[in-house]
Amino acid sequence: MFDHALNSKKTRICKTSNKYINDTSKAMAMKKDLILIYSVQKEVTLLGGVMALLDWDEKTHMPARGIEARSEQMKMISDLMHQKMVSDELYSSLKTLRKEKLSLKDSIVVRELYKDVTKIRRLPREFVQLLTKETVLASQVWEKAKKKNDFSLFKPQLAKMVALMRKEAKYLHPNLKPYDGLLDENEEGMTSERLTKLFEPLKSELILLLNKIKASPEYKKQKEITVKMPIDEQKELILAMQSKMGVTSDVAQLDKSTHPFMTRISEHDVRMTTRYKKPLDAFLSSVHEGGHALYELNLPTQYTNTVIHSVPSTGIHESQSRIWENNIARSFAFWKGQKGFPTNLFRSANMVHPSFIRTESDEVTYCLHIILRYEIERDLINGTLSVDDAKAEWNKKFFTMFGIMPKSDNDGILQDTHWAIGAYGYFPCYAIGSIYASQLYMQMRKELPMDKLVAHQDFAPISKWLKEKVHSKGRTMLADEIIKKACGKGLDPEVFVKYLNEKYSKIYSI
Amino acid sequence: MFDHALNSKKTRICKTSNKYINDTSKAMAMKKDLILIYSVQKEVTLLGGVMALLDWDEKTHMPARGIEARSEQMKMISDLMHQKMVSDELYSSLKTLRKEKLSLKDSIVVRELYKDVTKIRRLPREFVQLLTKETVLASQVWEKAKKKNDFSLFKPQLAKMVALMRKEAKYLHPNLKPYDGLLDENEEGMTSERLTKLFEPLKSELILLLNKIKASPEYKKQKEITVKMPIDEQKELILAMQSKMGVTSDVAQLDKSTHPFMTRISEHDVRMTTRYKKPLDAFLSSVHEGGHALYELNLPTQYTNTVIHSVPSTGIHESQSRIWENNIARSFAFWKGQKGFPTNLFRSANMVHPSFIRTESDEVTYCLHIILRYEIERDLINGTLSVDDAKAEWNKKFFTMFGIMPKSDNDGILQDTHWAIGAYGYFPCYAIGSIYASQLYMQMRKELPMDKLVAHQDFAPISKWLKEKVHSKGRTMLADEIIKKACGKGLDPEVFVKYLNEKYSKIYSI
Repeated sequence: MFDHALNSKKTRICKTSNKYINDTSKAMAMKKDLILIYSVQKEVTLLGGVMALLDWDEKTHMPARGIEARSEQMKMISDLMHQKMVSDELYSSLKTLRKEKLSLKDSIVVRELYKDVTKIRRLPREFVQLLTKETVLASQVWEKAKKKNDFSLFKPQLAKMVALMRKEAKYLHPNLKPYDGLLDENEEGMTSERLTKLFEPLKSELILLLNKIKASPEYKKQKEITVKMPIDEQKELILAMQSKMGVTSDVAQLDKSTHPFMTRISEHDVRMTTRYKKPLDAFLSSVHEGGHALYELNLPTQYTNTVIHSVPSTGIHESQSRIWENNIARSFAFWKGQKGFPTNLFRSANMVHPSFIRTESDEVTYCLHIILRYEIERDLINGTLSVDDAKAEWNKKFFTMFGIMPKSDNDGILQDTHWAIGAYGYFPCYAIGSIYASQLYMQMRKELPMDKLVAHQDFAPISKWLKEKVHSKGRTMLADEIIKKACGKGLDPEVFVKYLNEKYSKIYSI
Repeated sequence: MFDHALNSKKTRICKTSNKYINDTSKAMAMKKDLILIYSVQKEVTLLGGVMALLDWDEKTHMPARGIEARSEQMKMISDLMHQKMVSDELYSSLKTLRKEKLSLKDSIVVRELYKDVTKIRRLPREFVQLLTKETVLASQVWEKAKKKNDFSLFKPQLAKMVALMRKEAKYLHPNLKPYDGLLDENEEGMTSERLTKLFEPLKSELILLLNKIKASPEYKKQKEITVKMPIDEQKELILAMQSKMGVTSDVAQLDKSTHPFMTRISEHDVRMTTRYKKPLDAFLSSVHEGGHALYELNLPTQYTNTVIHSVPSTGIHESQSRIWENNIARSFAFWKGQKGFPTNLFRSANMVHPSFIRTESDEVTYCLHIILRYEIERDLINGTLSVDDAKAEWNKKFFTMFGIMPKSDNDGILQDTHWAIGAYGYFPCYAIGSIYASQLYMQMRKELPMDKLVAHQDFAPISKWLKEKVHSKGRTMLADEIIKKACGKGLDPEVFVKYLNEKYSKIYSI
């Protein structure tokens, strides 16, 4: 996980000269507008970093009783950021600048910032307050329902959240279908029509592959290898790996937290967390967060402190964690050349097995979990599925995909926090991330001697490639355009299916 | 050390009712003014906590390259706090309220806040900017001079700082002598006249005691015992000790840093740091920071989020770290009953020896180091000593006190950062802290079975006593008044001398 929302608004005061002597008054006015918009972006970026630190600290070091003041501190900073983004002065400068002939850089900044500002300004203050209140409530109710393992307790609050999110979609994207409006907030430019069309064949292929694996003799005898390793040694192994990826200790810090995450405090300062339960999990999840971190560290420096110095979509951010975790660190080449672990864990790192819980699932079944959630949230938001029918629909779909039935609500529809905290249109980005990652990985295999590089943990050429093709684009283009430019085609599940089939047919001798 | 400046401005929105229906218009206006001043204090408190976190993080977890953005983040938050404190709206409300008949609580808050606000408002913006610039420069020049071990390199910048501080004193306290103005900022109500009168006999007594110790046979054969202990074990020992003091893990967090410090993030959230070089030093310095932390955690809750929810002086803050570190954790009773360390370190914890370096000195010689600095900075600021003569004066005074001559500038006048960062009038507070601590300790001995409590590490009654007599007063009174109320007399070096003589005559059999 990464704190995307916190890092999505960024700026530096434009190096525009202060000498107006020979300028016409129109050019002078334009310069003033430019100075204003760059200065606001810088302030919002700085405050965003402060916000990220308050959040990081809450999850890593804050003593328990600090929570009340922390909420107030975060609300205060977040209000300040909001005030700056909705100010009439900023809006008026942007409107003026949109009509001017600008440099390429300025025109990109104005285009994206205007988009953000107009959207934020369309959300009425009372609506935002109501949504905040109901979200806090929904999270509390969800926690309670989880404790009692009873979805019916969460249902009324879920219905409220769905209605509110539909309303939010209408405010943000009046011309889109409600679900597409929410999807656009996470994966700009993506539509549910396109996604459904791509996910349908992907679903069939994944079920087919899963069934083949389940029928193989290898599957029947598979067993997880457990290793024991002191935390200090695990941490050393992780830091060495992250450093080879390019996430070095002068710009990055690794801590412990209940749920691993990555967040950016400033241009050259990222924080990652892990948990040391199983050494293999801690390692792979740290490689995952390292991938997120590398993206944030490689954003285009010419756009520092602007909205462009950020990641264009949740899906493409997720692709950068998954390519390192799955395509690279779970590859045969990596484990063939592995140093550090007392035993080769290649098979343990790639064990496929149907699981009720998304976060415990493997590379093959993961996207099935996602497609299930996508279909349900899409229909809830668009109003073709009622909250009353959601649980039955979940269990039916799950049985169709996995051949087993959730034994309880916690094993089924209650397991994720997303719908309680208002993260709708977020789930599909996980699948998009896996797909983008495989597309980039397969493309890299054409351009770089991947197996050799990975076996020798010589990651510099890989990081360089990713920086050039993905990271350094910032928000200058949509995610899908970045992938198309790098791989010749936008979102393409077929490449992902090909990648999975090649890899897992070898592992399971099918 | 503790980050006092950051924690000195505090508030909560007053529980004043919003129902104005039956109020006269004058009462209504007063309520509006009260709501305003409490709300500003709350905002400033929250921002102060954010500032403290940014600073804490910089010193504990921030990767090196985060420094540039961190400075900008801190400047931004500090500017916001400043804007709120100097706003005309706040000033006008305070002026109105000062003329009204207020509740006891409100009148205390208005009195202290008005004092802060009028002082801040008297500092011209350009002066603050100049001072900030010159302080940054002075710190850099001091670092360079230290590297070359050459005071002459620092001299021109020291002269600038002295001139600027004199000017600041004039702005803040136009009716006080320059040095007294600076002293008042750290130890409100204290004057150099009173201090000099108290320090003179103290100096003689300390030199006398030191010379007696140096002449004793025990002194000649004393030797430091070194112990080895894994960091995990040291940390466990420290946390157990702090917890017994009342600084528990639900409100406190212990980290590592180059220089140990304590800072408060919010009412129930304090952070302490230590460094694990020598186990005994790490332990005692953590007890020291624990004493600071306990003070911050026990401030009066009825004044939360107001300027009163803070510590009235640097000296009294220091007394709360020293009473735990020196009077309690360095006592014979403590080591008699000690658990945890593999050997009794009582003598090592109380070894007296003349040292060139203040931070390496012991309970007996520490205040000599301070008095030397006090005399020099007092005369520099008041203009009776020139920067050109300062080094010779330092060395002369040092020889008189310790009978040895500093071998280099780093062993002498260049050793402390205080004069480079503009902390004038701060040094004497360390001695005031030691004196207050001994006064409180000797008073406690009259009221509590101290030796028994300390030997059993049964600290609850001690913490309770300190909370009642000192911590819970907040800024409702001056430090000296708090001590007078608790011990029957204000600042009194005689008690300190008595305490030292009793303790060290036993240790050195003199």
